[in-house]
Amino acid sequence: MNDPLPIGATIGILGGGQLGRMLAVAAARLGLKTCIFEPGGDCPASHVANYHFQADYDDAEALAKFAASVDVITYEFENIPTSALDILEAHKPIHPNRRALATSQDRLTEKTFLQSLGLATAPFANVESDDDMQAAVAEIGTPSILKTRRFGYDGKGQARLKASDDAATAWQSMQDAASVLEGFVDFSHEVSVIGARAQDGAVSCFDPGENIHRDGILHTTTVPARLTPAQRSDAVLIAARIMTELDYVGVMGLELFVTPGGLIVNEIAPRVHNSGHWTQNGCLIDQFEQHIRAVAGWPLGNGARHSDIVMENLIGNDVEQLAQIAQSDTAIHLYGKSDAKPGRKMGHINRIYTKP
Amino acid sequence: MNDPLPIGATIGILGGGQLGRMLAVAAARLGLKTCIFEPGGDCPASHVANYHFQADYDDAEALAKFAASVDVITYEFENIPTSALDILEAHKPIHPNRRALATSQDRLTEKTFLQSLGLATAPFANVESDDDMQAAVAEIGTPSILKTRRFGYDGKGQARLKASDDAATAWQSMQDAASVLEGFVDFSHEVSVIGARAQDGAVSCFDPGENIHRDGILHTTTVPARLTPAQRSDAVLIAARIMTELDYVGVMGLELFVTPGGLIVNEIAPRVHNSGHWTQNGCLIDQFEQHIRAVAGWPLGNGARHSDIVMENLIGNDVEQLAQIAQSDTAIHLYGKSDAKPGRKMGHINRIYTKP
Repeated sequence: MNDPLPIGATIGILGGGQLGRMLAVAAARLGLKTCIFEPGGDCPASHVANYHFQADYDDAEALAKFAASVDVITYEFENIPTSALDILEAHKPIHPNRRALATSQDRLTEKTFLQSLGLATAPFANVESDDDMQAAVAEIGTPSILKTRRFGYDGKGQARLKASDDAATAWQSMQDAASVLEGFVDFSHEVSVIGARAQDGAVSCFDPGENIHRDGILHTTTVPARLTPAQRSDAVLIAARIMTELDYVGVMGLELFVTPGGLIVNEIAPRVHNSGHWTQNGCLIDQFEQHIRAVAGWPLGNGARHSDIVMENLIGNDVEQLAQIAQSDTAIHLYGKSDAKPGRKMGHINRIYTKP
Repeated sequence: MNDPLPIGATIGILGGGQLGRMLAVAAARLGLKTCIFEPGGDCPASHVANYHFQADYDDAEALAKFAASVDVITYEFENIPTSALDILEAHKPIHPNRRALATSQDRLTEKTFLQSLGLATAPFANVESDDDMQAAVAEIGTPSILKTRRFGYDGKGQARLKASDDAATAWQSMQDAASVLEGFVDFSHEVSVIGARAQDGAVSCFDPGENIHRDGILHTTTVPARLTPAQRSDAVLIAARIMTELDYVGVMGLELFVTPGGLIVNEIAPRVHNSGHWTQNGCLIDQFEQHIRAVAGWPLGNGARHSDIVMENLIGNDVEQLAQIAQSDTAIHLYGKSDAKPGRKMGHINRIYTKP
């Protein structure tokens, strides 16, 4: 365990998108400086961070300089090249750790890990060839879904199989990328738990939120989620179990399917998570501050929920409807992106929610 | 009334201290850019703002360039030279307006204005000479307090009179600065109301907070304040009355003394206010977002209070006690100042408060 970082220390953040932006603001609030590593120029995080290293992930010299200039390193996305991590880790601690990153970077590793903890996942089979694909369909059946093991996000790198006839087309669409075939899970809804773990092993989880997706992208998260008390407690215990097993430091997003037979783990994200944005207006300490506290070796904050909230993502030109966004009961969080491309996350709003 | 600023527009902020810093973060959250005008270099607001004009208030060229580069101008402190305002206002709208600024810049103008609205103030008399001083003491009596009419803050520029013998010394300490002698008010405690007024005239006030000072500097603000329902309603109505009369746009801080005979207005601050920092963790929309919304011509947000909070200022080396600051029930707001001089505001904490 490292000593707590002093006030004025610098957090290095890999990635300059909206998650990096909100992490940088949280760090500023805590009197900590931030240095972003991001190849892109006018990126959301650069508007509010103290420093911006604009370089590629294969630029060993820039990575080493970046690492030398910060006190600890964290990240806003999980697809960081291993070669970059090797260089960075030689200089400074990285939180969450390599194992957490490696586990969540690969769907096969992730599901195997979850099963080793006795946690329920969708049935799955590895697919790296035509033969694997045939065997997988025979084992898992249809309907099912083929997903690339790495680099998938927001529904990208996925193909649905309605019947076994779809197998060949689905596998071709992966262009030889190692994949997993996931069996159909008959779930009523999806929830996620945002958990945090400090360097001393203390764990604190936010209240589970209920997620609704549109076109494969998160649309809303509502708290409280529809869960029985037992499910709510299970959800939090699963998150704590995973973080403790991984000796995790920081905030983790955990997606769960709610089924009549119990909770099924869908996915781990080793970072702050879109489905935790409601915490900015629902809790004393939000997921971004919680992550920075953990990474800095500070004690976790109180994440108890004080309000019922619906978080809604603003996608593409949603953001142009200012009159609809800037309403009284709505806290606004925009990312400073100038170009509202279709499907692009431009911001989100947190609305106070009165139970019907 | 101006059209609402579009997302991506730039707010110019005069002053680069902690209030400017927190305004800049609120603006970033709303997808607006900020440009700070501040003579100092490594100032708190510059860490999070998009742009920083580092120039003096008598640099006409820099002021004009600054005004040309922004869409609207606001400020974090009231002592802006009139000559600077003349240059700025020729280019872009300034909120709150000149009258609000002029009224609050001078204690005599302020008290005269308040009386014209039928609001109660401490008894006062103008002092610009030895003769004025003698007449003032004869009229107001002692105990009383002599305050410079302009440029006073955090207890600076004040001298107490216990008896009429103190008059000459008190007046000498003002070094010929025009002053007012204020009579003693027998108040039980001080509260403040943070009000906001939008460009369309809509008014929204935060719940009054109760202030405790130490060494002339705000120490804590606690919500809810000890007030009867009638006093609470009076406090909010007084704030609304003042803002409407001044055709005010933005957030205003209003300090009130609570006496057995009713509320007495102490002071107006035409800006976000230290005693409103609790709103960052007590409300969906805080005073900083409320101010930016108003200045941008957007509708005000919902400032209803969801939690009981104690805000505590961190002064001088208070900020070095990280273990005492970074507790679970404490939201931390530090200003990024590197030099913890005695009496300097370094940050504040908002603590969840459970009524005894």
